[in-house]
Amino acid sequence: VKINGKDVRALWFSNGTLKIIDQTKLPKRFKVYECKKYRAVARAIRGMVVRGGPAIGAAAAYGMAMGAERPKRTSSALRNTRPTARDLFYAVSYMEEAIEEGKNPVEAADRYVEALIDRCKRIGVNGLEVLGPHSKIMTHCNAGSLATVDYGTALSPIRLAHSKGLEPFVWVSETRPRLQGMLTAWELGQEGISHQIIVDGASGDLMRRGEVDLVLVGADRITSGGDVVNKVGTYEKAVLAHENGVPFYVAAPKSTFDPETERGDDVPIEERDEKEVLFVGKRRVAPKGSRARNPCFDVTPARYVSGVITEDGITQ
Amino acid sequence: VKINGKDVRALWFSNGTLKIIDQTKLPKRFKVYECKKYRAVARAIRGMVVRGGPAIGAAAAYGMAMGAERPKRTSSALRNTRPTARDLFYAVSYMEEAIEEGKNPVEAADRYVEALIDRCKRIGVNGLEVLGPHSKIMTHCNAGSLATVDYGTALSPIRLAHSKGLEPFVWVSETRPRLQGMLTAWELGQEGISHQIIVDGASGDLMRRGEVDLVLVGADRITSGGDVVNKVGTYEKAVLAHENGVPFYVAAPKSTFDPETERGDDVPIEERDEKEVLFVGKRRVAPKGSRARNPCFDVTPARYVSGVITEDGITQ
Repeated sequence: VKINGKDVRALWFSNGTLKIIDQTKLPKRFKVYECKKYRAVARAIRGMVVRGGPAIGAAAAYGMAMGAERPKRTSSALRNTRPTARDLFYAVSYMEEAIEEGKNPVEAADRYVEALIDRCKRIGVNGLEVLGPHSKIMTHCNAGSLATVDYGTALSPIRLAHSKGLEPFVWVSETRPRLQGMLTAWELGQEGISHQIIVDGASGDLMRRGEVDLVLVGADRITSGGDVVNKVGTYEKAVLAHENGVPFYVAAPKSTFDPETERGDDVPIEERDEKEVLFVGKRRVAPKGSRARNPCFDVTPARYVSGVITEDGITQ
Repeated sequence: VKINGKDVRALWFSNGTLKIIDQTKLPKRFKVYECKKYRAVARAIRGMVVRGGPAIGAAAAYGMAMGAERPKRTSSALRNTRPTARDLFYAVSYMEEAIEEGKNPVEAADRYVEALIDRCKRIGVNGLEVLGPHSKIMTHCNAGSLATVDYGTALSPIRLAHSKGLEPFVWVSETRPRLQGMLTAWELGQEGISHQIIVDGASGDLMRRGEVDLVLVGADRITSGGDVVNKVGTYEKAVLAHENGVPFYVAAPKSTFDPETERGDDVPIEERDEKEVLFVGKRRVAPKGSRARNPCFDVTPARYVSGVITEDGITQ
């Protein structure tokens, strides 16, 4: 992500410390969160200091490196942070193998992250195919550099289109309860990419009125049957896109694919604290006594997905 | 609405003053806003101190009574407050006629409001038909007492079902940007009706998972062709209900029907200040420099509507 014109990654490792752009503080404040132990990495993942499937995987890879002297204990702590994103489990397994094979753990984590960044870059190239000049793209949540260390998944083709002068425009749905849309708006703003924020409930009518050329989102897990598990609200956009003849694309690297699970409904869906819904920031907005449900992800059945943009091309 | 067990209306007129429960302060604080002149009523409508089509109509009726000595000036000021809700225009025309016919303006406004309340009560009776025991109903925005002076439109059958021991359960979608879902949760909480709050983006997946028996919402305007204009996010719920075989009902009194406009797309849709999206309460959540679009309503084409519950029965 560009910060005042300078390229910065969502996280990086130096001198035994994992440094993470604190996503709970953005867009208000730019703060770097430092993890000196694997337990701090686990806390950062659970607390959403780092979020977005691929970025969680990258943080976990360094977490494994930091706790490599006792890999079983470390992997178990990291796996128990968040249940839905496939990248987390992919990264931990990757590191377990590397450690077992006697490789240098930090170097293995570096390789993991460089490969991820390279995949995201290639997603940009492959995704360019679905974008024309002045495309009006709707996205959800944040599938940008912050969610993937660099380039992003859904935002990668948009960045490339922008750099080629294709002048993309992005509808950013705010993505309650955690408002990750504001992270997307922040990333786009840093690079001068044209965008407007909308509430989640306005997405459908914009499609109905012909204001959206395509929907482009990331994923937390894609099953072998092609179901897409992603931030809650994604399924709604997929159905509304389908109903309005708007293509619905998902962008994800190999590490997001789960070959062992066929159906989205078999993926564990994280339910987070109801306070995320009952409060906005520190302010309670709900009446006293009211309770909330807070499923963090939803399932988009494969039939609504026009294609998945990966590092190897567009599938389906 | 019940407040600590006592019945209170959303607005009432006494000693030349219109008193309105200030909906911008709820659910945090219960405050009564007093209007001594028709201009204060116009300000209260524009600022959403009173909101909800039928309640806006009721406030406007008293506003007309308060400015009855110069009906043209008064009606013009009131009509210019908000463009979408039909009830506003219906109420102003009703009062113009009454004033022209030499009727007592306050008595005419009283009659208007009593007729409205009676309609809402009958909507409750008629709507009971679509509710069974333990129905799981999803609603959007606030179509309760606050939006209609008493009983509500969508909430009227739910209240009646509750009083008959049918134990309804309500999914309350929070309804960004103004979070009117919290008003609904507040009303339900005051009467001990079981409910849970969700973010707007979670509505669809709950339907997909079979957690919703029917959707029941109010309306700001219903065209002669049967299109429903209501709070932004309604169209999304209608499409998702349709896709998942969930009945989608709209509840509205006669004053919400616009016989002169055939298509929803011909209804003027209010766009409100982008700050409602960029801020939550007084806190800016969007990054500096980012802009927002803030359409206040959307259009649900007639084909997605299972039926409209009115004071005379269920149409379609």
